[in-house]
Amino acid sequence: MDVIGRCRELATVSEEAGALTRPFATPAMARANALVAGWMEEAGLSTRTDAAGNLVGRMSGPDVEARTLLLGSHLDTVRDAGAYDGPLGVLAAIACVEELRARDITLPFAVDVYGFADEEGLRYGTAYLGSRAVAGTFEPELFALADADGVHLRDALTAFGGDPVGMASAARPDALGYLEVHIEQGPVLERAGRPLGVVSAIDGQTRAHVVFTGEAGHAGTVPMGARRDAACALAEFVLAVEEAGRAAPALVATVGRLTASPGAPNSIAGEATASLDVRHPDDAVREAATTALLERATAIGAARDVAVLWEPRMDAPAVAMDPRLVAALAEAAEGAPLLPSGAGHDAVALAAAMPVGMLFVRCAGGVSHAPGESVDPADVDAAVDVLVRAVCALAD
Amino acid sequence: MDVIGRCRELATVSEEAGALTRPFATPAMARANALVAGWMEEAGLSTRTDAAGNLVGRMSGPDVEARTLLLGSHLDTVRDAGAYDGPLGVLAAIACVEELRARDITLPFAVDVYGFADEEGLRYGTAYLGSRAVAGTFEPELFALADADGVHLRDALTAFGGDPVGMASAARPDALGYLEVHIEQGPVLERAGRPLGVVSAIDGQTRAHVVFTGEAGHAGTVPMGARRDAACALAEFVLAVEEAGRAAPALVATVGRLTASPGAPNSIAGEATASLDVRHPDDAVREAATTALLERATAIGAARDVAVLWEPRMDAPAVAMDPRLVAALAEAAEGAPLLPSGAGHDAVALAAAMPVGMLFVRCAGGVSHAPGESVDPADVDAAVDVLVRAVCALAD
Repeated sequence: MDVIGRCRELATVSEEAGALTRPFATPAMARANALVAGWMEEAGLSTRTDAAGNLVGRMSGPDVEARTLLLGSHLDTVRDAGAYDGPLGVLAAIACVEELRARDITLPFAVDVYGFADEEGLRYGTAYLGSRAVAGTFEPELFALADADGVHLRDALTAFGGDPVGMASAARPDALGYLEVHIEQGPVLERAGRPLGVVSAIDGQTRAHVVFTGEAGHAGTVPMGARRDAACALAEFVLAVEEAGRAAPALVATVGRLTASPGAPNSIAGEATASLDVRHPDDAVREAATTALLERATAIGAARDVAVLWEPRMDAPAVAMDPRLVAALAEAAEGAPLLPSGAGHDAVALAAAMPVGMLFVRCAGGVSHAPGESVDPADVDAAVDVLVRAVCALAD
Repeated sequence: MDVIGRCRELATVSEEAGALTRPFATPAMARANALVAGWMEEAGLSTRTDAAGNLVGRMSGPDVEARTLLLGSHLDTVRDAGAYDGPLGVLAAIACVEELRARDITLPFAVDVYGFADEEGLRYGTAYLGSRAVAGTFEPELFALADADGVHLRDALTAFGGDPVGMASAARPDALGYLEVHIEQGPVLERAGRPLGVVSAIDGQTRAHVVFTGEAGHAGTVPMGARRDAACALAEFVLAVEEAGRAAPALVATVGRLTASPGAPNSIAGEATASLDVRHPDDAVREAATTALLERATAIGAARDVAVLWEPRMDAPAVAMDPRLVAALAEAAEGAPLLPSGAGHDAVALAAAMPVGMLFVRCAGGVSHAPGESVDPADVDAAVDVLVRAVCALAD
């Protein structure tokens, strides 16, 4: 079966009938791991599940001293997911190994294909549980997290067959690097007419919650000149965010959630709120844009006699891709465009411990996290071919 | 007891403990009518409750052929109301009659003081039930309306002692006019340092619900130039509404309710909605502003490739005050400013059947529909004095 056929089959393995929802350490994840382990073994890999619940399929190296190249992605999903976000990278890695064996290629390192146990964070609200264990950055306080049913992460992992006590054994100090294939989750490659892209960096991300407090009033009786309308302050801010995002290449800035209260058609808004999300591969650019937006919000409030409260919610630095891995992918992909990733991936966690590189596959309409995720079979074949060539290049 | 003391006492008569909430045809309304009827009788008025549940206190005219001047306001309230919106006008009218009697003034007409049964529409979602009956415009299909408990208006009115079958008897073809004292519910008089204002007209009102439909997407992966962000279209519209409101004197234009969906910080909004409320005393001004805003919304959508759906929700014409009643009040108030009313009042319904005039009393901070409603006792005394003098002027 080809990679897309396997993705489609894997997409039927779900906690929910009629929708693909596969959270960390659930029966559906156990079934997914078993299904993928079977394909790994068909490809000649020896399989195990590590202490964090990650599925690992190993192609041994020339000797026990040899270091290991990690390939893969995650097998968990968001709620009502598509078939490719995560699984594509695992199954492309298996297909890569199949091709290496078919060509009888001997590598100077071992290759481990990972199906990470948790990248989306659906069950515990914290992403990268699987890849953090592999990076050795899993913090034991996470074991105390409870899911929506009150089940603690420690107990869920134990029931799944993981080993909370032996979590450190999941770390891979022997890793020489990590390569991941993933759908782009955006429209850039499709618009450029390119099947593949090489990730230059994973964007840093700022999140903030901004509250504008003016004065509520009767929409009929308070003259325009006497208003302190929080919805108007919010509107100015939303447009300032858009303008800021447009001001620098690769910058994105978004207000995705907004509210006005009391929220009645005949009431002037006394309070309005906006979420802010700013991302860029260069932390300095992102921080400058965020600072400028804070200043704009303050100025908007001052001009309207509306109070502005700015609550920082996230400040995650950008993650650089390893230049050697980027070069290997770019050369194998014969001039595929370099592009930053606006979304996070397992590579974010793994970058703390090893060089990382990522290859993006064009997806229809940029859709992800929805059943409509779609990829072109020819693009997937190209991605597997690039991965094979990049792995071979690393052997030189 | 003075007018304010009576307002405060009446404010304790409520369906809710700890808050003033007095809906149409409830036990609290019966207690309120009984309390006010007692004050009416102390003032020498003969009292009755009409078919619609309105309390009426009559000072007879010189003969049975004499026509009747109506004074008053409403005794129902919104939820968690203040003490003055409505009751002030009823109790000022009683004080006016007391003063007329104290001065032994004989009028060529009868005077009926009304405590209208429903102006706010809290229970049945339809305003002016009491004054529509008096205007003869009460539509029988309203009897089929059900409240939140499923009680039909017909049954509620019957239980209250009203007479659905004899509703037509509430009409007053003998009325020669209606004068109402009401708190301003806005900040105009307070800001102008004036205790009283004469209402020039009651604003016409347009309401619409505007839906912007763009394309949802990932806030990290869709470049700014590839977005069709519905929240940004909404923001432009909110500012266009504010600009439109500022473009003409006495015009007010408001977006009080707004939404964006899916409403996640990391999602570009695919859909956003705005309420629109436009009011002005001149229908042509209001209609031109509304048409211009529809054009602006369309242009905003076109520029952003965002679809715009404009759903009209209300188009109520302005209500003129009677020039003779306006002149009588203005002369009695010695140059008090003329101002439009941005809110509706019983006079809107009564204007269909008789000349109407209104006198506004300054209120603290423009606050209404909230427990913080407050008026200055000296302003109330002045309002009663103006009402007395205007009534006397009409007798000439």
